[in-house]
Amino acid sequence: MADALKIGIAGLGTVGASLVRIVQERQEMLATTCGRAIEIVAVAARDRNRDRGVDLSKAAWYDNAVALASEADIDVFVELMGGAGGPAHASVKSALNRGIHVVTANKALLSAHGIELAGIAEERGALLNYEAAVAGGIPVIKALRESMTGNSISRVYGIMNGTCNYILTQMEKEGLSFEDCLKEAQRLGYAEADPAFDIEGNDTAHKLSILTSLAFGTAIAADDIYLEGITNISIEDIHAAADLGYRIKLLGVAQRTESGIEQRVHPTMVPYESVIAQVDGVTNAVAIESDILGELLMVGPGAGGNATASAVLGDIADIAKSRPGAQHVPAFGRPAAALLPYKRARMRSHEGGYFIRLKVLDRTGVFASIAAHMAENDISLESIMQHSKHYMDAAEPKTIILVTHATFEASVREAISSIKGEGYLVGEPQVIRIERPKP
Amino acid sequence: MADALKIGIAGLGTVGASLVRIVQERQEMLATTCGRAIEIVAVAARDRNRDRGVDLSKAAWYDNAVALASEADIDVFVELMGGAGGPAHASVKSALNRGIHVVTANKALLSAHGIELAGIAEERGALLNYEAAVAGGIPVIKALRESMTGNSISRVYGIMNGTCNYILTQMEKEGLSFEDCLKEAQRLGYAEADPAFDIEGNDTAHKLSILTSLAFGTAIAADDIYLEGITNISIEDIHAAADLGYRIKLLGVAQRTESGIEQRVHPTMVPYESVIAQVDGVTNAVAIESDILGELLMVGPGAGGNATASAVLGDIADIAKSRPGAQHVPAFGRPAAALLPYKRARMRSHEGGYFIRLKVLDRTGVFASIAAHMAENDISLESIMQHSKHYMDAAEPKTIILVTHATFEASVREAISSIKGEGYLVGEPQVIRIERPKP
Repeated sequence: MADALKIGIAGLGTVGASLVRIVQERQEMLATTCGRAIEIVAVAARDRNRDRGVDLSKAAWYDNAVALASEADIDVFVELMGGAGGPAHASVKSALNRGIHVVTANKALLSAHGIELAGIAEERGALLNYEAAVAGGIPVIKALRESMTGNSISRVYGIMNGTCNYILTQMEKEGLSFEDCLKEAQRLGYAEADPAFDIEGNDTAHKLSILTSLAFGTAIAADDIYLEGITNISIEDIHAAADLGYRIKLLGVAQRTESGIEQRVHPTMVPYESVIAQVDGVTNAVAIESDILGELLMVGPGAGGNATASAVLGDIADIAKSRPGAQHVPAFGRPAAALLPYKRARMRSHEGGYFIRLKVLDRTGVFASIAAHMAENDISLESIMQHSKHYMDAAEPKTIILVTHATFEASVREAISSIKGEGYLVGEPQVIRIERPKP
Repeated sequence: MADALKIGIAGLGTVGASLVRIVQERQEMLATTCGRAIEIVAVAARDRNRDRGVDLSKAAWYDNAVALASEADIDVFVELMGGAGGPAHASVKSALNRGIHVVTANKALLSAHGIELAGIAEERGALLNYEAAVAGGIPVIKALRESMTGNSISRVYGIMNGTCNYILTQMEKEGLSFEDCLKEAQRLGYAEADPAFDIEGNDTAHKLSILTSLAFGTAIAADDIYLEGITNISIEDIHAAADLGYRIKLLGVAQRTESGIEQRVHPTMVPYESVIAQVDGVTNAVAIESDILGELLMVGPGAGGNATASAVLGDIADIAKSRPGAQHVPAFGRPAAALLPYKRARMRSHEGGYFIRLKVLDRTGVFASIAAHMAENDISLESIMQHSKHYMDAAEPKTIILVTHATFEASVREAISSIKGEGYLVGEPQVIRIERPKP
């Protein structure tokens, strides 16, 4: 049997502690599968005295992750601290510069510095593995980077934030408001005390930026993602979606179009009978559409100490099974220098179906006016209907719901702007994009 | 850049021709991704003169696959002939004996000789990759063999035969009989002229035997699979399932139990709201339940020239990215010699819910008699109902449908045997097992 694979772990939070426990408890199983033992020889974390429920007596302790990465006698540096810059960035860079393989679960780091790090890894013959960074336990990085080699990808999309999917699922199931479901998610530990990063879509955007690079062979362009969170989704939207045969999910979507690559994160209506519509609660799902393989959908846990640790361990095992320096696996599918520039497709040119909910004053001719503004902008309607519990009360504003056939975002914006000018709108219109799986 | 990877392909049917076309058309893309070119240097097929729509002029032609495998100057032997024995077995063995990597899509071969071949591969330092052998384009082999390293698997199950899933989906959607849907499937090329191998469950069993070995680290035991096809499923069953909130799918299930490992292929009721219930038509799906990662479900194309060629190409690319002799990847997760003996859990000890449909003569006391026989066998009922279009016509036999809570197969068999003895049954009872995803 080959020499043991020596790993150093920086960050001993939930994922780090799970990883240590699993590696220690399953030594024999791992050695049999990998052809060599996996040994945790060094760890770095802030508080040495905290009880993490694992035995760290045999590992060298570092108070400083960068020191571990740059000095320890290790084969693999496992970064589980999080954060786009600071010690995570410095330590990963330092390890790669030494030619040491890196495994990380850090989406923010990769989204910000992924290509730089991939370049160093290639130059030094080190591997940079990050399965846990996107959709937790779902092996989507492996699918894109390995299984789908030779495929041309047309679209990648998915539910990549468990907090948002939990809230949307609960709103539908319990008929509760967004605020109530958010509170419940916080009580259960599914949402942070400051939930903005999740519910505004930033977390999904980080993950999407990584998938986009892998899928299309382009540089990471996280800042070019169109972003819309779920805070604006009301229980009326959920009910209207259900009536129309849809469910609302926060999707991250990256899509090849004629004008470039579209990257967008927004609440999305998906057909009720599609498989992804049935993905409930904190579960994640990622779909990949390609020209040879066809459509692949993967559903699984997107977060949690164990699921994330499992993905990290899979990455470590891949290194254990290889021999140092023996592989050519560019971190983002193509060598960093061969990645194409990212060409952004503007959101205005997005083409798809739209759900539009308008509150209007109950005046004669409103229906006709709305229909006319849609027609002026070449928007073909699938349906238009009035939807109100208080149909008989003329003083109440009425709700009008439109569903369009495929049309352009610019046309929808233009039509809504014209409708706003008519003076019969009450409050802001709600616009939700519709996404359909490949037929 | 490293030397080109030289491949030889035996079998130029739909998958082989797709593979040649893709490799030739995407040379540059593949070279960038793999760090070396992939070249088809030799091919073997029966008819040299058949037009396959691809240019084979640069490849050495062999009439005999074994000759190609044992003589050609190749790095990878790609076996796409099919068949458990004969030239497929002989040629793969011959290639591995020379230390040449093998990629195969041949489930029958692996089901019959997988462990023998894995042993030779390990001894000679060759890789044996077979992603395409199970569920076509779905990367389930990679997930089990690589991503889930260190996990203890409790259950693997899936829809692994597109023909059966197409027929069952059409029966439900169109309200047609099994026979009519089978004919339609044959007309569309989704079913063979002799469909027995698919509809009797043998194809699913081959695939399941491979997944079982990978999931549980045991020897392949294809002959120990409990087998029940879909020929017995009637439109009444489909309707009754829908009424009860289920869909019927042909599942292959491998499950760890206290008495051993259960392997079974049978029509199964899955809850309508589960993700797998929404997998329609020829699409496949595989779910893996494990203790660290949790539940992973993958949905994708299970067959077809392109999807299968994509999986084969992924396997070839993995070899291209590695360097010969540089990896330790036992074909079935553990080294062949370290695979555990397979201990069969008998079907009689299977525990789960059951759907039972009985046709009975309309006599007083029949309901009570059935309920009594269930109780005698400790079977707890979730529901019992009479189901008949001709409720008022006393001369017509009545249909009684029972759904049980979790119980043992032996108890169900015993109860049905007792009921048969009562003399009020008309025809054979229908028994369909219920399978639930992990909650």
